[in-house]
Amino acid sequence: MSETVHALIPRLRAICGDDGVITDSAQRRTYESDGLAYHAAIPGVVVLPTSTEQVADVVRLCSENGVPFVPRGAGTGLSAGALPHSGGVLIVTSRMRRIREIDIDNECAIVEPGVANLEVTRASAPHGYYYAPDPSSQQVCSVGGNIAENSGGAHCLKYGFTVNHVLGLEIVTPSGEVVRLGGKSAEAPGYDLLGAFIGSEGTLGIATEVTVRLMRAPQRVTTVLAAFESMDAGGSAVSDIIAGGVLPAAVEMMDALAIEAAEAAVACEYPEGAAAVLIVELDGPAADVDAQFDAVTELCRHNGAFEIRTASDAAERARIWKGRKSAFAAVGRISPAYIVQDGVVPRTALGEVLHRISELSQRSGIRVANVFHAGDGNLHPLVLFDDSDPEAGERAEEVSGAILDLCIEHGGSITGEHGVGVDKVCTMPRMFGPADLETMDRFRGAFDPDGIANPEKLLPTPRLCGERPGVRKGEHPLVAEGTAELF
Amino acid sequence: MSETVHALIPRLRAICGDDGVITDSAQRRTYESDGLAYHAAIPGVVVLPTSTEQVADVVRLCSENGVPFVPRGAGTGLSAGALPHSGGVLIVTSRMRRIREIDIDNECAIVEPGVANLEVTRASAPHGYYYAPDPSSQQVCSVGGNIAENSGGAHCLKYGFTVNHVLGLEIVTPSGEVVRLGGKSAEAPGYDLLGAFIGSEGTLGIATEVTVRLMRAPQRVTTVLAAFESMDAGGSAVSDIIAGGVLPAAVEMMDALAIEAAEAAVACEYPEGAAAVLIVELDGPAADVDAQFDAVTELCRHNGAFEIRTASDAAERARIWKGRKSAFAAVGRISPAYIVQDGVVPRTALGEVLHRISELSQRSGIRVANVFHAGDGNLHPLVLFDDSDPEAGERAEEVSGAILDLCIEHGGSITGEHGVGVDKVCTMPRMFGPADLETMDRFRGAFDPDGIANPEKLLPTPRLCGERPGVRKGEHPLVAEGTAELF
Repeated sequence: MSETVHALIPRLRAICGDDGVITDSAQRRTYESDGLAYHAAIPGVVVLPTSTEQVADVVRLCSENGVPFVPRGAGTGLSAGALPHSGGVLIVTSRMRRIREIDIDNECAIVEPGVANLEVTRASAPHGYYYAPDPSSQQVCSVGGNIAENSGGAHCLKYGFTVNHVLGLEIVTPSGEVVRLGGKSAEAPGYDLLGAFIGSEGTLGIATEVTVRLMRAPQRVTTVLAAFESMDAGGSAVSDIIAGGVLPAAVEMMDALAIEAAEAAVACEYPEGAAAVLIVELDGPAADVDAQFDAVTELCRHNGAFEIRTASDAAERARIWKGRKSAFAAVGRISPAYIVQDGVVPRTALGEVLHRISELSQRSGIRVANVFHAGDGNLHPLVLFDDSDPEAGERAEEVSGAILDLCIEHGGSITGEHGVGVDKVCTMPRMFGPADLETMDRFRGAFDPDGIANPEKLLPTPRLCGERPGVRKGEHPLVAEGTAELF
Repeated sequence: MSETVHALIPRLRAICGDDGVITDSAQRRTYESDGLAYHAAIPGVVVLPTSTEQVADVVRLCSENGVPFVPRGAGTGLSAGALPHSGGVLIVTSRMRRIREIDIDNECAIVEPGVANLEVTRASAPHGYYYAPDPSSQQVCSVGGNIAENSGGAHCLKYGFTVNHVLGLEIVTPSGEVVRLGGKSAEAPGYDLLGAFIGSEGTLGIATEVTVRLMRAPQRVTTVLAAFESMDAGGSAVSDIIAGGVLPAAVEMMDALAIEAAEAAVACEYPEGAAAVLIVELDGPAADVDAQFDAVTELCRHNGAFEIRTASDAAERARIWKGRKSAFAAVGRISPAYIVQDGVVPRTALGEVLHRISELSQRSGIRVANVFHAGDGNLHPLVLFDDSDPEAGERAEEVSGAILDLCIEHGGSITGEHGVGVDKVCTMPRMFGPADLETMDRFRGAFDPDGIANPEKLLPTPRLCGERPGVRKGEHPLVAEGTAELF
């Protein structure tokens, strides 16, 4: 434990209470990583505040002593955004989990940052409402973490990301000031720093109170599963559905390898022999959903779907979603190790990019399972490898990096919803020019002049990324420089 | 013309060409105000750039010489946000009006900032698409100005503000750098400065290219006009409609005085004897709209509507909207002068606030016509007075200020869509605490360290607002301190 942090412990205890400060090294080690376990560091000290005042006091103490702090929600992030700082304070919001208000008249709720995403929906369901953002980890991930990452979910095609569902925040800035951004009212004057804070990955401070928009539960939800003999056929069905003016709540696609994994793990019983499975969920007024349903099934058949299943109650829906929701974890059944990539391409480039991924896979001998939000072009390729073979791990890293190159090359993004964190920080210069990055850095500096809020995350520094910013250790510029022939 | 600005003219001519620089004082005077004409100043010099490079070169020149600049679109703003600086450069985007791309596959368009709002819809209509934000001035107001003000419109209840429809921007920062924010792809990593830029009222730089989201034109649009014998009855119908789960595209309300004005100006032939007129527009899939229509008309009747009219084609719709769209200008027919106020209250407080406005009006002898976006609580009270009576002007100012107090008191906002500009800059401390304003100011400073981008707008300064920030000249704290008895 660093000396500076050590010296703060009595004062941290005075702020958070003895049970709110963790110093024991074995206990601290349990916080060493978030969901992306190959980045790990033991935090200097862990605090578990229970109020805005405690958070502000802890942050002010850090600020006065130049000690870095890292905010952490439930630790489910996938970009090492909550990777602790060994010489810093890890501020965990897990004891701030009260739902303070469900205000149905104004269609919103006020919650503390540690509340689990799904708890908001549970609390509003009796009133016929729900909270729309639904990352796969929604049973455990925290609302505060969702704000840090601007989390999406299967339904963000129709309903958008966290930023579209947060009306207001109380935050503690890196200097320990309590500031309000937005509120129940739709519009506020001044700068919309609410939108900039959402997705800032803990680098601008910590949200201590969150006002979220509640949505009325739809009158009808119908889920369609369609099986195809090729990915092209499934992709073509997606294009036709969107071009036909249908806006489904979700459009998810899985390829044969992802289906195989899901089958092995949860026996989801998807149609045998499917090279692609498409899940289309429709929601809204009953009459509208029924009309959309007819259009979707017709377009799937027209594109060669050989089996179509329909779910119209919660139990049937759960059966259809089971394979998709377990897909990430399921690949563990068919591969000793894997990398979950997260990239975005314009929907119109989806077919081309999937072909290129398939080529990459064939040339490298590294299997890639594709699971993705087809409606908005958010890919989650699972790059499979045998971690007992060090060379295979390196090649998997290369394939994973090359997939990001493809996303950039096609005008997409290096992350759809998992964030930059530590994991993609050196990739940022491949998406942004120096002026863009400098503007972001000046913005960060306006909030955090001393650089203590989640340092070394989100924006590249020469120390982190070396003299060739944007090229990661062990990475070959496979695609950008047209050397895919290497494989 | 200030000496510093004068010295720049040859270089401005070299950048924008002779026809792109206006120095003649009579010509400069035509730019002295925007739509809020009681704030006026003659710009030092006016430039009309035609490209991003010209804008960047002009701004860089300003930056190097410490000369302020003010961006201006079509000049239709209502908060004096485009009030020129007499010692500065007014940068007018009216020659940047090309539509660069209509990309139907990705449902977006790329336009220059001077393009008129309605032109975007005109250009996409042949493809069955439109651009959703629709401020009343949409025939002339510019997309760049809409970005500066985060403009809404009658349909922002369902479709949101400009911020919900802009995917990407190319901007010139106050130091003359060209920076990209967002893009065609839904999600970008890093800080979402796009949202913070939208609504920043020209204080963070100038948008030079705009990527907007296009929406598919709805299958059906039905407009209902319902006449009531009281505002309470109309308001109650609105509450019931929203509570009933209907989300109309627009819900507009006018009171008797606003109806009288519209009648005098455009002979809109609204039902005789109406104390309140409600306009409800429904759009979406035909089956859905028809079901909503039945619900809306039933709820209006249930709340005592004595006449209901329905429009289902464009010509009939235009007849219904005619009175509403002309309402602001129309009050000129019934009053020599008026102030258009713009405030927001939570929808649930609407009835109470309207009663308080009516009391204020009765006590002060100042007539107030109410026109508002009832669905989202955005009020546009028109405060009428006789400008030949100086004392009446002062009382009208007081009433207008007191209405803002009411909005603040009820947890609302000092502006819904017209912005802060110069007009409400001293009101900001009544909504925000010192830490909030300081955070905004630091943010501004990160973009504009020298304070040359639209200075003295948006955020209060001691020079502008004196030692008692938040209290305007001539303003009585009528409501906040419970002294409404003054009237």
